[in-house]
Amino acid sequence: MVERQDIDAAAARIAPYAVRTPVMEVAGFGLGYSIEMKLEQIQHTGSFKARGAFNTLLSREVPAAGLVAASGGNHGAAVAYAAHTLGHKAAIFVPEMAGPAKIGLIERTGADLHVVAGEYANALQAAQAYEAETGAMQIHAYDAPATVAGQGSCLREWEDQGLQADTVLIAVGGGGLIAGALAWLRGARKVVAVEPETSCALNAALKAGASVDVEVSGIAANALGARRIGQICFDLAREFDAQSVLVTDEAIAGAQRALWQERRQLVEPAGATALAALMSGAYQPAPGEKVAVLVCGGNIAPDPLG
Amino acid sequence: MVERQDIDAAAARIAPYAVRTPVMEVAGFGLGYSIEMKLEQIQHTGSFKARGAFNTLLSREVPAAGLVAASGGNHGAAVAYAAHTLGHKAAIFVPEMAGPAKIGLIERTGADLHVVAGEYANALQAAQAYEAETGAMQIHAYDAPATVAGQGSCLREWEDQGLQADTVLIAVGGGGLIAGALAWLRGARKVVAVEPETSCALNAALKAGASVDVEVSGIAANALGARRIGQICFDLAREFDAQSVLVTDEAIAGAQRALWQERRQLVEPAGATALAALMSGAYQPAPGEKVAVLVCGGNIAPDPLG
Repeated sequence: MVERQDIDAAAARIAPYAVRTPVMEVAGFGLGYSIEMKLEQIQHTGSFKARGAFNTLLSREVPAAGLVAASGGNHGAAVAYAAHTLGHKAAIFVPEMAGPAKIGLIERTGADLHVVAGEYANALQAAQAYEAETGAMQIHAYDAPATVAGQGSCLREWEDQGLQADTVLIAVGGGGLIAGALAWLRGARKVVAVEPETSCALNAALKAGASVDVEVSGIAANALGARRIGQICFDLAREFDAQSVLVTDEAIAGAQRALWQERRQLVEPAGATALAALMSGAYQPAPGEKVAVLVCGGNIAPDPLG
Repeated sequence: MVERQDIDAAAARIAPYAVRTPVMEVAGFGLGYSIEMKLEQIQHTGSFKARGAFNTLLSREVPAAGLVAASGGNHGAAVAYAAHTLGHKAAIFVPEMAGPAKIGLIERTGADLHVVAGEYANALQAAQAYEAETGAMQIHAYDAPATVAGQGSCLREWEDQGLQADTVLIAVGGGGLIAGALAWLRGARKVVAVEPETSCALNAALKAGASVDVEVSGIAANALGARRIGQICFDLAREFDAQSVLVTDEAIAGAQRALWQERRQLVEPAGATALAALMSGAYQPAPGEKVAVLVCGGNIAPDPLG
């Protein structure tokens, strides 16, 4: 469905537009071992989502009506930014819960912004109505092959930068980023999916043996609060046997604070969720197992310079 | 005075303790060309100062009375952290202007903290009195060979990470970091010293032909507000013909905002000062000239998660 050559092609396509985000190896976080990190929140618009957005726009013909996207914030900002960069119109439907910092981020791109009451699913519904009415092209936030192939370029890039880890921890909302990682790695390294206890669509689906609707809440919900896991992610998680772990909001907040206090990286809760699995012991590496943490988003609210 | 082999030795000495901070190449900031950046605010205690502190402690015998340092905040935090890591006592004298975020950072290391009314020079005087009374070892914030050699490891590391730039821009307070860079590079790349108009000890010294006292104020003063440039820095700046440029507080604030909005790096004003020289045009690269910006400190106040 998404193959390594799709990710190679995505990487080549987006290279002139995406940031090659920095990586580092650091000790600390009370872990007693060092870990590799990739600071993907340095990506344009503050999350990995710009990769999938650019890959989609660069691999399809965009109609005159432009783009439409529904997003908890990060995907919307990425689509708006990519559309602006490539000269397309974009209408972005954002749930109220996205918060003023992410909404401001989208406004600054000059996109046509629609704030919808409620959660992500409501914004998606409004975006689908707009698509039907105008002929604008919908870009799904996570469950589309071009999106997943774009996100997969993140792990491809990390390997090119010398990734050593046996195991990579990745936060999961709708599953676009981890799907891209699984499609790229194809079992060559272990992948651990980390979700908040209060937004755990992949964990619930793996338990049920099929994707199911979950309730979403908690401090990371505006980024990770997908009600249902993407089918592409679910299939790849089963095929490559991704391990699924859950973390509390308290663990996420603790990891977020540690990233700032120890490494001066100010990230949103979703961006600290993978690290929270190590700090809380939700994932405990075996002796000698080398682990890596993907820091995926930095769009914290309120704006710290606001 | 400080030779390349001193910096080689410092780098080897501090390697088990210092973070190898990440580098990246990015376009943006309204510049129309891409630049290299090193995110040295990811270093322990949020600035390059930990390099000089570790190098000093690891190259001398530390008395039972421990360490004493006077600091606008970042050097004090670095000495306190290095002392704690290596098992020494530390008394840190901080001027009130350091602000609660930096003072809190030092408190968390468990150091014996003294907050002194007034500016850096007052804290230095109090630290010197403590040194005379107790026999504690003084670590100068910038004008000592072991400090400069430690800071020089930053440029050495950047070259090892593949630095391409013709020209490196570095913010200057007392001059420890740029002195280390000049001592390492020895003219192999151009070095541009960037100071706030309101705290410009190096610029004033280069104009006067000798180090002179200056008044210090402005948004970066708690990091860059040295009243007099270090002699080691001054001599190296003249020997290797460092170019000196000045930026306004408005330009610094603009660069600080751009680092957050474009790259999700939240830094203190001093950390954005080198970038401000490019964004404001205070330094204009020649066509084809490749430039690099050293991001040197991230201890912003107030604490964004406070």
